[in-house]
Amino acid sequence: MAAAAAAPVWSVDPRSGKRREQVAVEATAAEVDAAVGAAHAARASLADRDVRAAFLRRAADVLEEAGDRVIEAADAETALGPGRLTGELGRTTYQLRAFADIVAEGAFLDVLIDHADPALAPPRPDLRRYKIPLGVVAVYSASNFPLAFSVPGGDTASALAAGCPVVVKAHPDHPATSELCVALLRRAAADVGLPQGVVSLVHGFQAGVDLVRHPLITAAGFTGSVRGGRALHDAAAARPQPIPFHGELGSLNPVVITEAAAAERAEEIGAGLAGSVTLGVGQFCVKPGLVLAPEGEAGDRLLKSLTAAVSDSEAGVLLDHRMRDAFVDGVRARAELPDVHAPVTPGAGGEHSVSAGFLAVPATRLAAEGPHDLLLEECFGPVTVLARYADESEIGAVLARLPGNLTATLQLGDEEGAGTDAEGRGARLLADLTPLAGRVVVNGWPTGVAVAPAQHHGGPYPATTSTSTSVGGTAIERWLRPVAYQDAPPALLPPELREDNPLGLPRRVDGRAEGA
Amino acid sequence: MAAAAAAPVWSVDPRSGKRREQVAVEATAAEVDAAVGAAHAARASLADRDVRAAFLRRAADVLEEAGDRVIEAADAETALGPGRLTGELGRTTYQLRAFADIVAEGAFLDVLIDHADPALAPPRPDLRRYKIPLGVVAVYSASNFPLAFSVPGGDTASALAAGCPVVVKAHPDHPATSELCVALLRRAAADVGLPQGVVSLVHGFQAGVDLVRHPLITAAGFTGSVRGGRALHDAAAARPQPIPFHGELGSLNPVVITEAAAAERAEEIGAGLAGSVTLGVGQFCVKPGLVLAPEGEAGDRLLKSLTAAVSDSEAGVLLDHRMRDAFVDGVRARAELPDVHAPVTPGAGGEHSVSAGFLAVPATRLAAEGPHDLLLEECFGPVTVLARYADESEIGAVLARLPGNLTATLQLGDEEGAGTDAEGRGARLLADLTPLAGRVVVNGWPTGVAVAPAQHHGGPYPATTSTSTSVGGTAIERWLRPVAYQDAPPALLPPELREDNPLGLPRRVDGRAEGA
Repeated sequence: MAAAAAAPVWSVDPRSGKRREQVAVEATAAEVDAAVGAAHAARASLADRDVRAAFLRRAADVLEEAGDRVIEAADAETALGPGRLTGELGRTTYQLRAFADIVAEGAFLDVLIDHADPALAPPRPDLRRYKIPLGVVAVYSASNFPLAFSVPGGDTASALAAGCPVVVKAHPDHPATSELCVALLRRAAADVGLPQGVVSLVHGFQAGVDLVRHPLITAAGFTGSVRGGRALHDAAAARPQPIPFHGELGSLNPVVITEAAAAERAEEIGAGLAGSVTLGVGQFCVKPGLVLAPEGEAGDRLLKSLTAAVSDSEAGVLLDHRMRDAFVDGVRARAELPDVHAPVTPGAGGEHSVSAGFLAVPATRLAAEGPHDLLLEECFGPVTVLARYADESEIGAVLARLPGNLTATLQLGDEEGAGTDAEGRGARLLADLTPLAGRVVVNGWPTGVAVAPAQHHGGPYPATTSTSTSVGGTAIERWLRPVAYQDAPPALLPPELREDNPLGLPRRVDGRAEGA
Repeated sequence: MAAAAAAPVWSVDPRSGKRREQVAVEATAAEVDAAVGAAHAARASLADRDVRAAFLRRAADVLEEAGDRVIEAADAETALGPGRLTGELGRTTYQLRAFADIVAEGAFLDVLIDHADPALAPPRPDLRRYKIPLGVVAVYSASNFPLAFSVPGGDTASALAAGCPVVVKAHPDHPATSELCVALLRRAAADVGLPQGVVSLVHGFQAGVDLVRHPLITAAGFTGSVRGGRALHDAAAARPQPIPFHGELGSLNPVVITEAAAAERAEEIGAGLAGSVTLGVGQFCVKPGLVLAPEGEAGDRLLKSLTAAVSDSEAGVLLDHRMRDAFVDGVRARAELPDVHAPVTPGAGGEHSVSAGFLAVPATRLAAEGPHDLLLEECFGPVTVLARYADESEIGAVLARLPGNLTATLQLGDEEGAGTDAEGRGARLLADLTPLAGRVVVNGWPTGVAVAPAQHHGGPYPATTSTSTSVGGTAIERWLRPVAYQDAPPALLPPELREDNPLGLPRRVDGRAEGA
């Protein structure tokens, strides 16, 4: 019997819709098993924190050295453009180095030591706790960040930093970039003496499903759609041994503009909003998808400014033709709803491109369940919805109907921001937005997610399927679990937990912080 | 049409199997909804950390003041005895006060501040992150700890400490104790000016299912069986908006005794093991259920000592008759397996009681899949399995077949503990046990779970359904999620995130720890 032919994986040019080259074949169940097995076997090689830090730094170097090739490969498959991709590569290498610093510092180990206390009733034994890596991690790449949220991205970097080998499921929109990046990561691994199994790549939808179900996979990170992410989340939860599934699935990213903000800065806000909506052809997880703006003169000025700025934006190519179709159809369905009009009609810009635009609707249309609920769903691409309120109470009525978000944004007037307005509106709106999102932005825009220790890129479902973040230093927490040693003899303790703290780790001893 | 009669909830005396009194009725869906709604409405009342700390301290006081009544009620329903229950009440009030201290100190808020850095590319905005309460928490009480893991127990205490109102699902084995405790907690709430909705109680199996599915429930804590816990876990994951489910489901708690340990301390280890297995009639989550002990003379002495100590233990009453039947049946099925013998036969001790015992089997019987896998499943009650190994390689073969555990225990000889034996056996075995459990005990016993900052009471599935702990200071992390503010004007920031740190919180600023 002949074996079934392996399904080919093609790299496609979104600017033409044409196949560029066959990059790989879809992984069979046996190939997924082999990748996971090699990763599992490579766990011990990542036990040393110094080696992990060296690997992450070397990976950043290797990516930079191959920067032109990486950017060329990614641009050919994603049409994101060399400018944006240069920035994304910088973000990716910065992130790898930031996690190297985090590994070296060791605060993420969360070392807690309680000395024995025989005076307590019952007497307390000696307890020493820190965090250990979970094991092999599955990473599902995003379409919209072929580098920073894909093979060499934040999930991979944070998992490796935690000491977990990684098997990446490539996104079908950029398989050649994925192959190039995994080869570079493996070269960096070899350069620091690590086995190739520390990072692997598989292609194919079924391979992704096989991966999350594999008994040796201990956790998963995902960035993508609600539909795909939810299916994998459910598979992770249904395993004989369920595993943590950290998925970032979708976000509307509401913006609230007060009357005072519009009155003071209508033009600036309109232009800023247009920039945030059209950045990267609207293909950011944190693109503002719903904007509550006032009716009346100030709101009209804002709409005028937004109209001008969006009209000026160039047509762009989306990541693939399926997304382009979904955008065109999604915009059309929304525009056909009663009382919705399109000051700048978004839609098909050319055979392969789309044009940016926005829709406007009275906010009251969103305050109760109905067909306008479609406007409360994310529409991937360069479009937003301006919901105009006549009365401030309408803001609360719309916010109450929103699902969870990665971000919520507030545009305030000067007095509101200073807390000197009579109504205390700024603080009140900030409090109202906090339950809706993982990050609340004031007088700025949500696009541009800084890589920083205090960043939180997550939020109530469907923004994420857990309470974790996929950007920033605390992203490492997703791949660890605590273990406590009770009365372990000093000679047997791992160095991280020894009394004399030979590694100089920050820790809490008997409830008090020690070191920095 | 007449309404269906509400299902009665009876308090039953396990010493006689007789109903004591009808305590309540099972909650209808409408009653569950009312309890959750009241809890949701009470969220704001818990916003102030000082009020939460005062509530937790007052709850400890009120429970102590009513101590005699509480212990009497619990003993009548659980047969755990006044001695054990006095200890458990002490543990419960200690825990409530420990969480009050944790709330007051505020390190759990995990405050991270990154100042704006315009020199970075891209420029970094001002980011300030801390953790906020998730919302209403569902707590599922345990059978075996009517206080410390039930209405006023660690899940409730940590959730209230986090700022989350709680709805407790009562365990059917101690409904009267549950009613008494919720009344005491509510009295404490009233004493500090909090609404009654901050803590509620519901009875009934269906109420428990309704609770985990309720849209306003944001997280759940559970201590109980694999079957019940897994069903609730699955329901939590299948919700339209999945929620974190922190369940402690079951654990075998393996013990490894080296040849040297047995040679040096056979009698001490045998007696200690017997004490740990029979403590509380073997009804602890961390009871040692599988003991790897050497063949040969030292092992024989250990077995003899264990035999003597277990034979001396008195018959005891299990928490309910269903458990008694399961214990008797479970022991019988295990004892009937080939090559299993019972040096002290456990089983029915009397009409309402059971007697302790243990089984012995060659370790080789557990090294491969087969009917003896039954011995690798938890058997709730005063029984353990001594698996005797002829060769140290058999230890590894058995450990490789174990599911996740709350604890793993190692008994070492003096040189092994000092790290001075030629083989480095102590460190190696410690490393082998670490992947199996959340707490590794050396030369002690797993029963007696200290309430301490560094405690970890959790472990790989099925020990827990998440990477969290249900005992110790970090249990509070389960009920929080991070939120970051970007460029929020100083006047609008919550006091926890203000530049001048008016609350004196420990925090990390620009990546460096500050304060203690």
